[in-house]
Order: sequence, then structure tokens, then C-alpha cells
Amino acid sequence: MAKKYVYLFSEGNGSMKELLGGKGANLAEMTILGMPVPQGFTISTEACTRYYEDNEKIAPEIEAEIQGYIREMEKINAKTFGDINNPLLVSVRSGARASMPGMMDTILNLGLNDEVVVGLAKLTNNDRFAYDSYRRFIQMFSDVVMEVPKSSFEKFIDEIKEKKGVKNDIELDADDMKELVKVYKKYFKEKKGFDFPADPKIQLLEAVKAVFRSWNNPRAITYRRLNDIPGSWGTAVNVQAMVFGNMGETSGTGVAFTRDPSTGENKLYGEFLMNAQGEDVVAGIRTPQSIDQLKQVMPDAYNQFVEIANKLEKHYKDMQDMEFTIENKKLYMLQTRNGKRTAAAALKIAVDLVSEGMLTEKEAIMKVEPKQLDALLHPQFEAKALKAAKPAGKGLAASPGAACGKVYFTAEEACEAVNNKKEKAILVRLETSPEDIEGMHASEGILTVRGGMTSHAAVVARGMGTCCVAGCGDIDIHEEDKYFVINGEKVNEGDYISLDGSTGNVYIGKIPAVEAEITGNFGKFMAWADKYRTLKIRTNADTPADAAKAVEFGAEGIGLTRTEHMFFEPDRIPAFRKMIVAKTVEQRKAALDNLLPMQRSDFEGIFKAMAGHPVTIRFLDPPLHEFMPTKEEDIAALAKELKITADELKSIVSSLHEINPMMGHRGCRLAVSYPEIAEMQTRAVIEAAINVNKKTGLNIIPEIMIPLICDLTELKFVKKIIVETANAIIAKAGVNLKYQVGTMIEIPRAALLADEIATEAEFFSFGTNDLTQMTYGLSRDDAGRILDDYFAAKIFEADPTARLDKSGVGKLIKMAVELGKKTRPNIKLGICGEHGGDPSSIEFCHNAGLAYVSCSPFRVPIARLAAAQAAISSVKAGE
Amino acid sequence: MAKKYVYLFSEGNGSMKELLGGKGANLAEMTILGMPVPQGFTISTEACTRYYEDNEKIAPEIEAEIQGYIREMEKINAKTFGDINNPLLVSVRSGARASMPGMMDTILNLGLNDEVVVGLAKLTNNDRFAYDSYRRFIQMFSDVVMEVPKSSFEKFIDEIKEKKGVKNDIELDADDMKELVKVYKKYFKEKKGFDFPADPKIQLLEAVKAVFRSWNNPRAITYRRLNDIPGSWGTAVNVQAMVFGNMGETSGTGVAFTRDPSTGENKLYGEFLMNAQGEDVVAGIRTPQSIDQLKQVMPDAYNQFVEIANKLEKHYKDMQDMEFTIENKKLYMLQTRNGKRTAAAALKIAVDLVSEGMLTEKEAIMKVEPKQLDALLHPQFEAKALKAAKPAGKGLAASPGAACGKVYFTAEEACEAVNNKKEKAILVRLETSPEDIEGMHASEGILTVRGGMTSHAAVVARGMGTCCVAGCGDIDIHEEDKYFVINGEKVNEGDYISLDGSTGNVYIGKIPAVEAEITGNFGKFMAWADKYRTLKIRTNADTPADAAKAVEFGAEGIGLTRTEHMFFEPDRIPAFRKMIVAKTVEQRKAALDNLLPMQRSDFEGIFKAMAGHPVTIRFLDPPLHEFMPTKEEDIAALAKELKITADELKSIVSSLHEINPMMGHRGCRLAVSYPEIAEMQTRAVIEAAINVNKKTGLNIIPEIMIPLICDLTELKFVKKIIVETANAIIAKAGVNLKYQVGTMIEIPRAALLADEIATEAEFFSFGTNDLTQMTYGLSRDDAGRILDDYFAAKIFEADPTARLDKSGVGKLIKMAVELGKKTRPNIKLGICGEHGGDPSSIEFCHNAGLAYVSCSPFRVPIARLAAAQAAISSVKAGE
Repeated sequence: MAKKYVYLFSEGNGSMKELLGGKGANLAEMTILGMPVPQGFTISTEACTRYYEDNEKIAPEIEAEIQGYIREMEKINAKTFGDINNPLLVSVRSGARASMPGMMDTILNLGLNDEVVVGLAKLTNNDRFAYDSYRRFIQMFSDVVMEVPKSSFEKFIDEIKEKKGVKNDIELDADDMKELVKVYKKYFKEKKGFDFPADPKIQLLEAVKAVFRSWNNPRAITYRRLNDIPGSWGTAVNVQAMVFGNMGETSGTGVAFTRDPSTGENKLYGEFLMNAQGEDVVAGIRTPQSIDQLKQVMPDAYNQFVEIANKLEKHYKDMQDMEFTIENKKLYMLQTRNGKRTAAAALKIAVDLVSEGMLTEKEAIMKVEPKQLDALLHPQFEAKALKAAKPAGKGLAASPGAACGKVYFTAEEACEAVNNKKEKAILVRLETSPEDIEGMHASEGILTVRGGMTSHAAVVARGMGTCCVAGCGDIDIHEEDKYFVINGEKVNEGDYISLDGSTGNVYIGKIPAVEAEITGNFGKFMAWADKYRTLKIRTNADTPADAAKAVEFGAEGIGLTRTEHMFFEPDRIPAFRKMIVAKTVEQRKAALDNLLPMQRSDFEGIFKAMAGHPVTIRFLDPPLHEFMPTKEEDIAALAKELKITADELKSIVSSLHEINPMMGHRGCRLAVSYPEIAEMQTRAVIEAAINVNKKTGLNIIPEIMIPLICDLTELKFVKKIIVETANAIIAKAGVNLKYQVGTMIEIPRAALLADEIATEAEFFSFGTNDLTQMTYGLSRDDAGRILDDYFAAKIFEADPTARLDKSGVGKLIKMAVELGKKTRPNIKLGICGEHGGDPSSIEFCHNAGLAYVSCSPFRVPIARLAAAQAAISSVKAGE
Repeated sequence: MAKKYVYLFSEGNGSMKELLGGKGANLAEMTILGMPVPQGFTISTEACTRYYEDNEKIAPEIEAEIQGYIREMEKINAKTFGDINNPLLVSVRSGARASMPGMMDTILNLGLNDEVVVGLAKLTNNDRFAYDSYRRFIQMFSDVVMEVPKSSFEKFIDEIKEKKGVKNDIELDADDMKELVKVYKKYFKEKKGFDFPADPKIQLLEAVKAVFRSWNNPRAITYRRLNDIPGSWGTAVNVQAMVFGNMGETSGTGVAFTRDPSTGENKLYGEFLMNAQGEDVVAGIRTPQSIDQLKQVMPDAYNQFVEIANKLEKHYKDMQDMEFTIENKKLYMLQTRNGKRTAAAALKIAVDLVSEGMLTEKEAIMKVEPKQLDALLHPQFEAKALKAAKPAGKGLAASPGAACGKVYFTAEEACEAVNNKKEKAILVRLETSPEDIEGMHASEGILTVRGGMTSHAAVVARGMGTCCVAGCGDIDIHEEDKYFVINGEKVNEGDYISLDGSTGNVYIGKIPAVEAEITGNFGKFMAWADKYRTLKIRTNADTPADAAKAVEFGAEGIGLTRTEHMFFEPDRIPAFRKMIVAKTVEQRKAALDNLLPMQRSDFEGIFKAMAGHPVTIRFLDPPLHEFMPTKEEDIAALAKELKITADELKSIVSSLHEINPMMGHRGCRLAVSYPEIAEMQTRAVIEAAINVNKKTGLNIIPEIMIPLICDLTELKFVKKIIVETANAIIAKAGVNLKYQVGTMIEIPRAALLADEIATEAEFFSFGTNDLTQMTYGLSRDDAGRILDDYFAAKIFEADPTARLDKSGVGKLIKMAVELGKKTRPNIKLGICGEHGGDPSSIEFCHNAGLAYVSCSPFRVPIARLAAAQAAISSVKAGE
């Protein structure tokens, strides 16, 4: 039997979203439920993918199938395409599996032509409306289907208004509209070389193709990327009979939610307009009335609507967002879908639906989008102010939240402004480096011109919970001259800008923000998530404060403490630099001896903050040049401090320079060159654990993690230093401290040889930042430009540094898990890359059999929820 | 049964090299053959590995076994350890599986003590000799076994000479020697706190341990690395009864080769000294006589030796290098092994042995070390002059040959010196960049301070066949002030230096060199190699001249044409830079239009030179910043030429800067951003092929290779540009040109997803340079320092950028081969990384089922031979 590509609404149902799209499936479901739905048919998503497979053509058998369904539709609606007395008019709308509001194209009133418009005028008893509809249809169809921009028609309206001496469209009468139709059609023919298509069936087929094409328009592609929707899904097309809410005072149209989408309050919420079409509600020329008022105006329709709304919410077990039209007192349902809602509303609705008995806890967990929780944890711009503001440019949404402050171009000046002038600062940099840490901490927000989702700025900002827009290529920055230009506008030091870290938008000027607020529902809801997840959630934290914050957010351990971050503090970096410039092992050891007490006390603080939760400490990782100054005057000052000449120091700095530092002298390679560094760090970890255990009675088992391992021999070498140092300290202290030594798996070779590595490693932690970089050969610091071009060319659908690449990097991870377990069945497996906070990556980790994910403190709640959803989904999938 | 660790010479045989080492196996074989060998035993290589497993201890059961064998040895030799009247004295020598001459330690005359020396004096009737031997034994044993350096004893000799008022050791008499023995033993006790060990059995055990330890001394480790000998093999220890060539005028000692090791001439070659021990021959105080003269001196011994030599050569089917001693007219064989020989001798001997019927062609092929062929293709320093010269420093042996010339620090100055002043130049740079190409070409040799075996300098120099020493960290370079300092010595611009690209040695001053010379044996021998190999050998060539050179060396195609190298020529780079700074697609296309004819004519030249052999052309690969100037004045000049301001140009150059350019905007990523570049390159390839086919009647099928692919969608995108462009040109020309589109596999992800990639790629070429970098996360440009430390720490045994890492990178390659063949069973597979010229990597490629390897022109003969050896070995292994 030939494959079926088209379905009447009465042939589908609500579970067929993959085939019919969300809108089509819900129209079918409402039809089954006996609700008043203008009847039509849905062309499936498979027809869309087939359209692309066939080089953007509709295959003859599908065209024939559509023609057949047009006849069915004419029968059901007892109206006929092109019939002057009883014309069938339709809307043609996209409808993907996942809701993508406003991203693709819609055409209304399709079926109009020079003859049918006469019939419509008669039917509505309104010439002006009929010809206005016809004019709009020509304009919309030309724009969407024929690539003649909507805006290019506007000049004709201006001309006619000038001729008549009027200002507003509303002042044009039926004759003017008739005239416009003529002018539009003439212009269309000039542009395209053929007449505007009069045959409704041809109009329909062309409209269907246009909707298919709109699946790949740039804004749809961007939306899909931001929302993890695969390009391979395609969109369905819904062809639905038009009903008219503008047939006089017994007609109307509106939208409504079953609960308040802002607060979650259990109360019908919405608005309507009498004698209007949907687009009038959107256009905002007339002020709509509250849905409650419909009770007075048309009690029957209102009661019927309320009944339907309640039924739909119970049926879908979720808050519904519905469109309806009343035509001559008769109610029609045009759409229903699970309504978009604020994070606060999402939690309230989920909790309420459970207490109302409508949902189980597990079902409620699946209803909240993990990423939405960000909004609860970070300040957000006031919705109204944000709507009114126009972004001056856009970068990557690198760390969520809203920030507003004065622009500063160096970390020092930002600190100065915040600490001494009590200003709010936004730090704007070409790219940040570890030297900027303090300034980043002081600032409200961070804006960089270069760098991707795992660039230094992005990673550090997320760790701090500070708003960050990274890799904003729209900016032409002049750091030394203290200004930048964004899309032609110049912004000087001290000028106000606002950053939206959740969208990546950059605004010139101030936008007011509201603080983050956590409600009681949050705790209740997250407790359910914790009940059902099996993945542990750890955090990446480098300081006792970060660690405490993460515990507050529910972290169950630390998966990554970056020991180097501690060395950047102003009172420590001199000692660290002395270590770097040491010429002999003795000099280096002397410098390290000075660092030991600081590092030990940091670890003591972290161990205390984590109160017995496991703590994984990664040994020194970044290349040493990152710790050295670069500016002439800073070098001179440091040389003086170190008692060497500036030339000597310059020669040392230059000898540390690397062409590809990401693949250079860093990670465990530093421990191989300078075993005394690993020795000092081991000493600090072990002594801190002994001290804290003594003071608190805790039984801390520190986990020492060696970064950048590529070979077993290398791991053995470094592990030997650690074990010998640790055992000597433990023996001397006469205590019984346990500790573990494990490794990052972040170099492809380590994943490939994980069976060998596991003979020595007691745990693996997948460093998916580096693993992704190496597996793709793509530097995260340089990825911005490349990714832009790759998104534009439709090569990449997602940024692999933000969303784990399941096919390539994932294959390596699965291989390493399998090989590692083969050698050491109980090996502890986790992930500490930035992907640890990304819901779809967390699902992968759950399915790959990892024990925990580790993410920045502010992402811990998201990870908890995502882990619960992964656990619930995988049980379902396994049913 | 307990494992056996010790073997009498009479228990072994020549095939037991793995267990007994080369020396031990050959001593056993000579014993079997009934030759006069002083008897003893061999402690196996397994005992050595066991020694390391047991934390550098000899296990009690092995010690017991050794003690047992000492008793056996005493019986066989009818002498006893410590017996004053008939003492057993032994030599203790290392002997690994592969010959490592001079790398490990040897102890002679072991068994001497205060009593035994008296017996020895009586036996030799020579007090001075006996006590001199004892003194030397104390010195040698203290040095090798007890870590009291040999040199620290020298002061006592000086003292005694001063006291006596003599100058030479030879003037010291027996009493002086007796005195020295006393002083030495006193000094030993002071140093070590215990008496010099008098018990011969203890001496022996300690000596055995010392030989085991010497397996891991730094020079042995370096030798193994340079000669691909695994550290896991371990060394055997040979304990052999001493015989004395210094027992008067009827005794003597010598070394001889069955053929001339310099020329290969079939004639006994060697020298001997009467009344002497082996070390006297080496010391060179007395001038040895030619082996022929032995005929007169001791005809019986001579005839016996000639008979043995002939028998050994026939037995081993190879030229032998033998040590012998005559004690009281009796001939003893101390060692035989396959003799080291020059490249020319190696070929002559191989060819002669075949014509003498001693070897088959296949056996002859296995006798020549592929790397040796380098010496035939490049100039070499005169052996004598080289021996006399002392290296001032050492870098990586990056490109073989010998070079001597005046130092210049910039490419321009080197060109100027060569072209205008008719000087010979050595270009010395911190690191080279593509801008230096012309200067590199003009120079005799290239010396860099940074960079590894696959750094820019190394790769380009090997391609040109120019001598290069890379990554010479001994140098402190001051390019701007035009001098460098190497181990304390200052070398100015214009000073002469000499480079040995085969050892990495750097010499101050001139060393005369001899030109490369290819003999008739070369052609004959290489023809055999070609007969038995199955791998095709292609070359990496970027110009018609390189291509012609490679064909001369036997290349069967081009595996890699780097199209970017063409753009660096002075008459082309302006057009290329215009392309880079273009602001619009139109500007870029205009610049590309200027490049098209140049690129097309290059391809025409290459196609003609290759005369129908396959040619793989890789599209633009390096990041664009490599093409831009960096110096202030060059930028100003270029800006003027491009008619933009210097600031604008600087801003463009700075926008091209990347933090990790190796993982940045390069390879196919450039084609995604600028499809017009791929278009132009396709046009150049296809038009060139059409033109050459027309003119010559050849049927060229160009292979277009897309670099840096990480994803199928990306390959599809670029392939589409190529196919559409190519097909349009072909259709317009009305010809029937075939072409292939394939991809580099150089990103780990491409290897992991090779089954997907193969749906579009018609061939794979493994770019093992990048694949190794990414798989290890190790930048080849920054690897120098890291590798030094890793070799020192015994973590790496080989440089993975020079020798293919079979376990990690090899696993990826095997995976990609398997996945690629699954999708496309006939997919063409090759390798074009630098490993394509490395014999052990070629063996891997053969076994992995690749169709060809591609290497620089001068490595083609090496690759042909290595491929033949791989084919012969694998058939053997499969027997």
C-alpha cells in the first residue's frame, strides 16, 4: 500500500504529534472529543522531509493525495473552492512536533480571487472587509509564497492615502480597497511576469510548499538550535476551513489560558474582541476585553468555552493555551496547546496539578523545562521594559541573568568603579583571561567580543552566577581608546549598557531588572526531582563560598575544584610567579613552600563547606604563561619584585609562549616537568583532609584528579608522586586517611585506551570541554566565527561545546565507559565539563551509565531536574 | 617447574635472541658450531624484566640459579673463583636483543682481589700487568657498580706521576700500580663506608645488577628511542671466562669484518695487536696491524680465523663483525654479530650476497635498514672531519644531510647572501613560518630553536630535501640583534656553522661534506623492493619540480599537493592577501580570479610531471593569518599596496588572530566561510586536467581532497560546491573528464564516524600529523619541551609525531578503515602525514590494509624499501 501523507482531522489523534505536528494532532484530538473545530486536513511531517529529499518538490502522488483531500474537505464543510455562492476559504498553517511560535509562515483567507471576493462580500454583507481581506491575502501570499516582500506593497497604500488626504488605513473605504487589489495585482505581474494565481487549488499547493520551505528560514533554524529541535523533524501543514469572527456583533475572536501563565493561578485568563479577526487582536488597534466579560456579552458561548477549556486541561493534564472564534454566536476552537508560562507559574502549576490529583509526581516533573529554572535563580529584566527595548547586537547567551551598568574596559577599572565609586560595572573585553578574575567578580555582567560557550569568560561567569554575553561579533572594540562600536553606535567608557545573559542580547542604556525569587513551590518540586533521579549532582567549585552556594542549591559533592583559580588572587600570584621563574628545583620548592599554607587552608575551607560530601580536586591545569603579566609596565614591576631584570623576565615569559597553548605544556604535563608542584598540591590536600577530619570528626576521603592524561605510563608517573607524598604524610600523622587518585578523560587517546588507564585510575571524570575540542579539532576560544558560519550553512544544528555531541564525542565516552568498566567494574564515572549543566547532555550521561554530573553551582537545580527527567524517561523507554 | 633464567652457552642457540640477547645467542651458536669460545653463561632478558618488576632486586631463586651456574662454569673451565693458583676471571657484558653498541656497561677482569692478583701475576709472569688490571678493575667496578665515578680516581694517578716526575701512565711500574691499588681501595672505603668487595661471587652479583640498571641509563634510553627499541625488552647479561691476549708475544687480540664495512668489498677487513687486550686496541696508543699481517705473524691462528669467519658469514648469511683473542697461540672467538656498515656497503653486500647465491632477493631486502638510504640521497660530512669535530649543541634530526654555511637570521638576508653575494647560507630562526619559504629554499640548511619533528621547518625542509635541525633548545637566540648563544659560545651573523640533519648535531665552524652518490646497486636493489611490496608509494609534492624529483625516486603518484604553498611565492602573495582582506564576496571573487591562472598553471605542471600517475590535490588548509605580514613596516607597505589604511589592515590582521590556530578557522572551514575559494580551486584543478589531457592525450583523473572534515554534513556542503563547479566546466568543455572527491581523516571525530563520512567520500587519506596532535592533545609546534621531559621521565619511548602511535592513533585508524570499508568496500585508503616516510609506521599502514603511503620526495626510496619489508614480514608472520 502506498504511504499515507495526508490525514483528515477526524483521522488523527493527540498522540500523533510526530506525524501531524503539535497543532495538527491537537486539532484531531479536539475533533475526536467532539469539540467544535472547523474541519480540514493535515499534511504530515513526512511529506515535508520527503519534499526536501525530492530536492524541494512535492511528489506527484502526494499532490494527488492533497487534491483528493481537498474534495473530502469540501464535502465535510459543504463549501467549494472557487464557488461564488458558497466559497471554501482556508487557513494554511505550519505545525511542527515542538511548538515554534511565530517562527514559520501562515496564510489566511486562501481561496479568494476576483470572483470569490464578490461572494464573500455578499456573505459578510461587508464590501470593505471582503476586499480588505483579498488585498491582505495578496500581500501575504506574495510575501510568503512568491518572494515579493510584504513591505514593497506598502507604498501603494501611502499613495492612495495621500491622494485622499487621509492618515490612517482605517479611513480607506471599500472602493479604495478595490483599487488597491487592482494595483497590487498589477505590481505582482510586473514583478513576477505572470498573473497572481486565481485558482484556489494552485494557491493551496504553492502555500503548502512555502510552509515547507519556511521550515528552513533563518529564524526557524536559530530557534531550533536554541531549543534543541532537530532539523530532520520537518513541519506538518494544517489546512483548515476559515471561520469569521468579524461577521458582526454576534461574532468575535479571542485567546485564553486555563491558568494564569505569569503566576500559575488557577483561573481562566485571556482576552477577546467582538467583530474581529485574530490579527486584529494582535495588531492592538482596539483594546481587547477580558475573557470574563464574555460571560455578559455572550453567556452561552462563554459557558461552552469554559466547559471546553476545563475538559481540555483535564484531558491534556496541563495548562492549555487556546484560540477560538465565534461566528454568528457559534463557538469554534481553532487551536489548543500546552501554554508557555513563566518559571514561577510552571512550578506552581506542576505542584497544583499534583495536589489537584490531576498529575502524579513523575508526570509533574516532566512538565517543567529544566532550563526555565534559570529564571528563578538570576535577576531578569522587567518584561514590559524588555519588550520596549531594541537590542543593539547579539552574542552568545553564555551565562543567564540580566545586568545593567557602566561600561569599563579593564578589570582594574571595573574594580575601581565598583569598590571606590560604588558604581555598577559591565566589564567589556575582547576576551577575558585569568588575570581578569577580580574584575569579573566585581562586575554586574561581562561582555566579550570573542569566544564561545566554553570560553574563559563563559565558564567563569557561569561559575560565579554572573550574567555574561560572550562572542558578540557585532562589536568593534577599541580597548585602548576606551570605546566600542556596536552596529554603528559608539559606546564610551562610563556609558550604560544592559545585557541579557539568557538571550545574548546587548542593549544600549538602562533596562530595569527584577531580582531572582525562589518560592515554596521550588523546594517541594525539587524534592520530587531528587526522589526520582539516580544520577548524583555535583558542582564545579573552587572556593568555600562557591561550595556553600552549591550545597544550598542541592549539590551532593564537588566534581571539580580547579586549584589554579586560587593562585590568581592578588596576594597569591606573586608567590606563584616566583615558582614559575625559579631556575632551580630548590628555588621552585621554596616558592611552593610559600603557596602550601594558602592552598591547604583553601582545601580546609572547601572540605568544611562540603561537610563530608565527596570532593574531587584537580591538580594544576593551565599553561603557566596564563599566570604571567603581558603589559610592559606590569613586567617591569614584576621583574623588580622578583629581583631580576626586565629582559630576563621577558625572556622567561617569551619562552612560555606557545602557538597552541590548549594542546601545550599544561595539565599533568606540568607535573611531569615539575614533580614538586604535584608534591605540594598533594601535601595541601592530604594535610587539609587530616586537619578537618580531626577538628570536625568527619571522614573526608579526598579524590585527587590528574588532568590531561593521554597514556598509562604518564598516569603511573604522576600517581607515584602523589601516593608516595600522601602515604608519607599519613604515616607521619599516624592517622588512617583514605584517598583516591583518578583521572580526567579529556584527551581522545585516554578514551581510546581507557582499559589501560583504568588499571591505575580509581575514577574517571569526563572533561567534555577539552574532549570536545580535541575530538572536533575545534578550539573553543576561536569557535565563535566558525560556528556562526556553520549555523548559517546548516552544517551544525547545535554548538557542540554547549550541547554534548552524542554521535562523535558520545561514542568516545561510551567506549571509555565500557573499556573502563571492563578493567575495573566498580570504577566511579562522572562528567565535569560544561555539558554537566546541559539537560540534553545530562540525559546522555544518565543513559551512558555515569554516576554523577558536575556543573557550576547555579546550574545544580537544572541538573537535578534534568537528571530526574532522564531517569523517568529511561524507565518509560524501557517499559 | 620453575622458570629458567640462566643458560650455559652450550644450552642456547642463535635463534634465542629474544631470551639471550644478540651477543648471548651468537656465543651459544658459535659454541654449537664447535668454535673456540671461552665458556660461560647468559642471564636472560627475562631476568632483567623480572629485576625491574621486583623493584630493582634480584629474586632469591634467580640468585640461587646464578650461583649454580657459577659452579657449572668453574667446572667447564676447570678454574675456580678466588683460587690463587688457578683463578677464574670473567667479563660481564650486556647484550640486548638488538645491538646497542657502547650504550650499556661492561666489566672486565672480574674475580680479582688482593689474593687472586698474586696468582694472576704469576700466571702472566707480569706484575705490572696484573696490578694494572686490578687497578683498572677497581676503577671500572667502582664506576659501573658503585657510582664512584671513574674520573674521581684519576687524581691519584696524577699525584703519583708528579711524585715520580713522569708524564705518561706507561712510565709507571709495577710498584706504582701496587701503590695505586692501595690508594684506590682506601678512597673507595672513604667514599662508600665499606671495603671494596673481595668476594668474586659478590662482585659478580653486583655487576649483574649494574648491567641490568644500565639498561635504563640516559644514553641507552636515547639510543632506543632513536632506533625504535622498546624499553620493555630488557638486556641479557653474559658472563664469560676471560682469556688474555696480553700474555706475551704469542698472544694478541683483534676485531675483523668479513667484508669491508665502508665499501662492501668482499675481503676480510680488520686489525689486531699482539700482546694486548681489547681495550688497548680501542685506546689507540699503539697502532694496530692490518688483519692480513696476522698471516705472517701467526699463520695457524690466521688460517683458523679465516675459516671461522667464512663459516660464520655463510651461517648467518650476512657480513660478520667479530672479536677474537689469541692466548698463547690459541684462538678464541669472543663475539660475532652482523656488522654495521655504510649505506653504500649495505647495498653492495646485499646485492653481492644474492649473486653469490647466499641470499634470496627477499632475504636481501630484509638486510638493509631503510633509514640508511638517507645517507645515499643527501650529502654527508667527511667521516674523519666529523669525528674530530665537537658538537656545540643538539636539536632534533629533522631533515637529513650535512650543511655548512654562514648564519643569517631572516629569510630575506639569507636570500640576499645566496643570490647576490654567492654565499652559502644557514637560516637560523626561532621558528619558521610560511613567509620564510624562499629563504629556506635558498639556504643550505635550516636551524630552529623551537618546534618538533612535524613543525613547519621540519616538514618543509624534508619536502625540499634540505638539511634541518629543529627545536635546538640549547640555543639562546637574539634574532633582532643578529646573534645567538649556544652553550656559552656566541655566534654572529656571517659566522660559519655546520649542521648534521641526520643526528641533530650543531657545530661551530666549517666541516667539509661529500656529495650524495647513487650507485648501480641502488637501482638493482630498489627494483627487488618494488617487486615484493604491495603498498603503493606516493609523494607529497607542491610543485612540478618536487613532483619530478619524486618520480625520479620512484614515486607512483602524489598523495598530497598542498595548494597553499603556491600562494607564498612573492609574485602571488599580493593577490592572495587581497583575497583575504576583501570585504565583499565580489571583491574576493575578483582577487580569486587573479589567482586562478597561476593555480591552474601549477596544476598543469604537476599533472604533466606525473604523466598520468594519480594526483591528490588538497584544498586550502592553513589559517589565513599565516599569509599576513606581522612586522610594522611590512604592514604599512601592504596597506599602501591594498589602498587601505595601516590601521584598517592591522584590525584585519588582528581579527584573524587565533588563540589555538591549529584548531581554528582552517581547512574545509575556510571553504564553508568562503565557498568561492573552493570554487576557484575546483576550477583550477578541472581546467588544468582538461587542458593537459587535451595536449598530451593522457587520461588524468584528479583527486580533490577536502581537509579537516569532522562531520558528514560539512563534507556534503563542500563537495556540493566542488561537484557543481566541476560538472559545469566539464559540460561546457564537452569532454568526458572523471574526478574523485575524498577527504582527509585527520580529526578524531571523522575517524569515529568514518562510516557516515564514507557515504560521500570516495577516498580517505589519513592526515596523521593532525590526527596525532588531536588524539594526544599535543601541539606539534609546542611539543619540543614536553617531549624532552617525557623522554627523561621514561613516559614516552618515541616521538608520536615522528613514529605513528599504534595503540592510540592506530586504533582510530583501524576503526576508520573498518567503518569506511563497511560503507564503501572499495574505498581508496592512504596516508599523507609525515609518518608516511617512517618505516615502522609504514609497516603499520601495510598491516592496516591501506593502499598507499605518501611521503616527501626524498623519503620515497625509504618508503619503497620499508613497504617491501612489511610485505615480506607479514607473509612470513602469516605462514
